[in-house]
Amino acid sequence: MSTRPTRNRQFRLASRPEGKVQRSNFDAVDGDVPSPGAGQLLVRTKYLSLDPTNRVWMQDIEQYLPPVQIGEVMRGVGLGEVIESQHPDFKAGDLVIGMVGWQEVAVLDGGGPNKPTRLPPGLPFPEPAFLGALGVTGITAYFGLLELGKPKAGETVVVSAAAGAVGSVAGQIAKLQGCRVVGIAGSADKCAWLTGELGFDAAICYRDADWKEQLRAACPEGIDVDFENVGGDIMSTVLAGMNLHGRVVLCGLISGYNTGKRMLGPFDTVLMKRLTVSGFIILDYAPRFMEAVMQLGQWMMQGKLRHADTIVDGLDAAPEALNMLFDGGNRGKLLVRVAVSQ
Amino acid sequence: MSTRPTRNRQFRLASRPEGKVQRSNFDAVDGDVPSPGAGQLLVRTKYLSLDPTNRVWMQDIEQYLPPVQIGEVMRGVGLGEVIESQHPDFKAGDLVIGMVGWQEVAVLDGGGPNKPTRLPPGLPFPEPAFLGALGVTGITAYFGLLELGKPKAGETVVVSAAAGAVGSVAGQIAKLQGCRVVGIAGSADKCAWLTGELGFDAAICYRDADWKEQLRAACPEGIDVDFENVGGDIMSTVLAGMNLHGRVVLCGLISGYNTGKRMLGPFDTVLMKRLTVSGFIILDYAPRFMEAVMQLGQWMMQGKLRHADTIVDGLDAAPEALNMLFDGGNRGKLLVRVAVSQ
Repeated sequence: MSTRPTRNRQFRLASRPEGKVQRSNFDAVDGDVPSPGAGQLLVRTKYLSLDPTNRVWMQDIEQYLPPVQIGEVMRGVGLGEVIESQHPDFKAGDLVIGMVGWQEVAVLDGGGPNKPTRLPPGLPFPEPAFLGALGVTGITAYFGLLELGKPKAGETVVVSAAAGAVGSVAGQIAKLQGCRVVGIAGSADKCAWLTGELGFDAAICYRDADWKEQLRAACPEGIDVDFENVGGDIMSTVLAGMNLHGRVVLCGLISGYNTGKRMLGPFDTVLMKRLTVSGFIILDYAPRFMEAVMQLGQWMMQGKLRHADTIVDGLDAAPEALNMLFDGGNRGKLLVRVAVSQ
Repeated sequence: MSTRPTRNRQFRLASRPEGKVQRSNFDAVDGDVPSPGAGQLLVRTKYLSLDPTNRVWMQDIEQYLPPVQIGEVMRGVGLGEVIESQHPDFKAGDLVIGMVGWQEVAVLDGGGPNKPTRLPPGLPFPEPAFLGALGVTGITAYFGLLELGKPKAGETVVVSAAAGAVGSVAGQIAKLQGCRVVGIAGSADKCAWLTGELGFDAAICYRDADWKEQLRAACPEGIDVDFENVGGDIMSTVLAGMNLHGRVVLCGLISGYNTGKRMLGPFDTVLMKRLTVSGFIILDYAPRFMEAVMQLGQWMMQGKLRHADTIVDGLDAAPEALNMLFDGGNRGKLLVRVAVSQ
């Protein structure tokens, strides 16, 4: 069990990034460790989840949550350890997943809509998996693919950003449904990992000059489901290869998040091919998260689903590490290790 | 019953239009009247349907049917009278709906996938209605709205190109479902017609400088269903006003058909609002057309659904009349009267 920390370092949004996130977009503030009030918990952040959506939260654009305001602690999901509890459902030493933010110590409400999730002790999975294949990104892959993609055995599923936290799980789940699965990723290494380790049928590096031809060749019967994380030219290319009445799970548009521009896509193709495009934010499925975690955990225990992660050390690394999501620097779930157990 | 015509004037595609369709994009050829072979019919075109999709067929772009080839008779749906029949299901004097093309006389196969539909005699509707509210455009409105829009009583439905053949029927059907219905059209006259005659709750003229504010004011509870015929800025504006989990029936993108450019739309809004966008081509519903016609006809007989049309005279007027669809010159179904009964 952790000792009580003596300071709380926080990263507060100082300015809205233009283009890539810079360290200078944040003020690092070392403050005192707060005390939880009635019904609250003091949580020490162990792992902070870095996600493409963090970049969206920094912008003052239309989105699914309020933008983070200038001066606020940057919003972020993390895994932490309860240090002190003023709520009967939690006790010191509990591991929880919650909106800890970019800070070493967080005060969280133990109840209400944003209460953290307590991890049952003794589960045979490494802690980072609860932010990855068994966490929000895994759950995102699960509901996005199964509820909206509705893949049928024998169909072809293409996953963009396939080596990322969501894509790598979505592709594995599609394989478990009996689909032909083709991933799109940013390096030959990642492609080799997708086919060699995760069981994808093919993987295409979008930096190859002939990647569009490779994609076509990898999908000889056309594409039935696009699990879309990227947008832009990659999305347009995939949609152009889709079969009539294909389904597009619109999970993310990461290629646009750093641009400051509107993220457009080919409505003409959607019309002519009679595609169904389903915008998708995992928060809508919150009441059903447990269903997904149970199935994902079962697959992991059976060796049918792999969690992968890329871990960087120290909260100070968070701003620049976030850019790895855009540059393709991570494989699987990208995490910041904020504190080690003491 | 018609006498046998002595010539067959045809409009053949001579060049692919750039921008608006020009008379010079067609060769008018006066040929002999052909004789139907075994299993075929000779049909004299009475009314030719003009539709935005005709413009798409003229272009060599990705679409749901093969583009019309240079030198081919322009494709078109029409209502005609059987002059001679070599097929047991049809006899001279029958009225049929079919792919007559832009010509005065057509030879059609009496069987097979493209066989014409014979109109039962004695129905209490004017002939043009069978190309409008009771025809393909009415059926388009019916399935698009009900199957994909899934409107529930009390929801707000916005229809673009609301005074057109599809939009005017879609809006009326939405009213019959108990929805609040807001139309977008191109003139104050049309808007007055939509609210005064067709029962729309509100209608907005997109040529007004403040039309976006008017639209917002007309949809105080947000927009649940967009029946989209236009695309471009109109579509983006409607989507920006949609409620979470709204449905977009993507029926047409007429604002783009004359531009020669890709027709893009706001995938960021689709993602953030978790919209479902359903590309929609009515041909997919062909096996169920009768179901729609029965219901539409019943509503018309009950006085709950109105057919409206704009009729121009003479096949020679077809190329330039098609532009009325883009300039807003028509109200309801746009038809060319090719021949009067003799």
